[in-house]
Amino acid sequence: MTARKPTMEDVARKAGVSLKTVSRVVNQEPHVSPVLQRRVQEAISALGFRRNEAAARLARGATMLTIGLIMENISNEFYSRLAKSVEAAAADHEALVVFGSYEERPERERMLVESMYARGVDSLIIVPSAADHGWLAEHGGLTAVFVDRVPHGLERADVVLLDDVRGGRMATEHLLARGHRRIALISDDEALSSVHARATGYRAALREAGAGVDESLVVRGVFDPWRAGHEVARLLELDDPPTAFFATNNRAAIGIIQALRERPERPAYVGFDDFALADVFNPGVTVVRYDVTRLGRSAVDLLLSPSDTPRRVKVPVELVARGSGELPPPAR
Amino acid sequence: MTARKPTMEDVARKAGVSLKTVSRVVNQEPHVSPVLQRRVQEAISALGFRRNEAAARLARGATMLTIGLIMENISNEFYSRLAKSVEAAAADHEALVVFGSYEERPERERMLVESMYARGVDSLIIVPSAADHGWLAEHGGLTAVFVDRVPHGLERADVVLLDDVRGGRMATEHLLARGHRRIALISDDEALSSVHARATGYRAALREAGAGVDESLVVRGVFDPWRAGHEVARLLELDDPPTAFFATNNRAAIGIIQALRERPERPAYVGFDDFALADVFNPGVTVVRYDVTRLGRSAVDLLLSPSDTPRRVKVPVELVARGSGELPPPAR
Repeated sequence: MTARKPTMEDVARKAGVSLKTVSRVVNQEPHVSPVLQRRVQEAISALGFRRNEAAARLARGATMLTIGLIMENISNEFYSRLAKSVEAAAADHEALVVFGSYEERPERERMLVESMYARGVDSLIIVPSAADHGWLAEHGGLTAVFVDRVPHGLERADVVLLDDVRGGRMATEHLLARGHRRIALISDDEALSSVHARATGYRAALREAGAGVDESLVVRGVFDPWRAGHEVARLLELDDPPTAFFATNNRAAIGIIQALRERPERPAYVGFDDFALADVFNPGVTVVRYDVTRLGRSAVDLLLSPSDTPRRVKVPVELVARGSGELPPPAR
Repeated sequence: MTARKPTMEDVARKAGVSLKTVSRVVNQEPHVSPVLQRRVQEAISALGFRRNEAAARLARGATMLTIGLIMENISNEFYSRLAKSVEAAAADHEALVVFGSYEERPERERMLVESMYARGVDSLIIVPSAADHGWLAEHGGLTAVFVDRVPHGLERADVVLLDDVRGGRMATEHLLARGHRRIALISDDEALSSVHARATGYRAALREAGAGVDESLVVRGVFDPWRAGHEVARLLELDDPPTAFFATNNRAAIGIIQALRERPERPAYVGFDDFALADVFNPGVTVVRYDVTRLGRSAVDLLLSPSDTPRRVKVPVELVARGSGELPPPAR
């Protein structure tokens, strides 16, 4: 499967005709004698030459859509499920998806946009990092829809978001209803609108319940399970430790599970984002979940129906009780 | 971000010049007066027009590589990790990755190849389904490297495989060494070369240990955790049940964990494929693992260094003991 791709030069040599003649036959232009046409066709068959369809397509002006998907890391479960849902929605329009992960390097996000744009991929779905996105406005002809987070520095942008404030509120109210008052927040970078909104819901629920927000129980900037676990262990060592945790993403929830394997305490916890094995743990992990296919499908829909006015889609969330969020506070 | 993309026609209209003049300026051809050049440049700036870089690139004959990655399902952890490793290796060559999932529909695999090929993506990395791939040989100029499984019906193909026979043997020998004799196999479609090879290692280890292969403990065609769990429960109800399980992929291993949540027995089990939470369960899940980045990197390396002789790379595997594979058989 690794033979060198035959070129038009190879076809011309084999057929004993000029390159121009091959080009005319391939592009179905007039003024080629039937004899030469036959010779070129035979050379093409013999060599397995196939004209560069991308070039031919561009020449015809036809559209075969490729959607660019730019996100943090395809190997994280949230992103791989998002990628699957974008792929499925794109397939309905016979579109393919090219993806790129910027990981912890926001500057790579811009490189990915440029790289896709340079290849003619100008329909993008972006999960924006915390960096400024004002530079995107300079790209005439680029169509971008943002998912999960609001981009910074762009006044007019189509965005598909989760109902994050409500999710943060639901998780916290669920724990409050079981009698918890000291509920810790294990959260990512609050410069991300999603994280900020989930924390806003958490704070609102605590305030409304009269429990108040103890800032010593609010942990920010947790990017991986290991760090989350470390923070959980630290909080549980406090003189007045939390009896419950709200994790604003799946990595933080996994860190909580890991930390609790090593500890005697049995605090309650609720995660944001469902994950494949959440119901296999004992206790099962109570989470705020949503239909990830709606995220991907809404983004593709917005991308393929451009509008002059920016739009904002909000995907609903729900709480799934599986055990970890229903544990009571310890008796005093 | 959704304004219509300005065309060369728009630029020509705005500048009050012919389309041909715009084309000459954009393509930096000679014979355009400085005055007209200036007018076109100003119109381009005003409209945010950017010449179609893909078309320009094809005209220049330059190469900007896009690699197509075709696999079963991007949202499965094995595939999302493979996608990440292919992406990272591709990035070293400034290449992007377009992906496609065929899921349980092998005919979609061919559609994805055709769809990518029609867009000029002729460098492919394919995790082949069980279907025949002889049709691929008809595509002149297509370069494909196969990962994880050997394709059917292709005599000359570059393939990157895991050391599956050895992995199957290691898992089984590990259980035999703990005193297990009745070891069940929970396996996928044996028409897949990887699954077949893992089962071959399992059988060889059992025979060499004098334990023999009891075909009533061999389960094939398990595609999802639910089905695997169902089979585990069925086997544990036998008069002479297995005391250990070898799962030939991560979905089967997860099915075992799920089934055992509901059951009193504590059989040992070893999975093939590591997964993110394997060490968070109690007991931790003993697995045969490998460096997935070597799979992706080897595939990209083969793809970008074509050879006339087909090549086969074998990625080594190792056993990671975490608890589930070290449980002893019940006392008799």
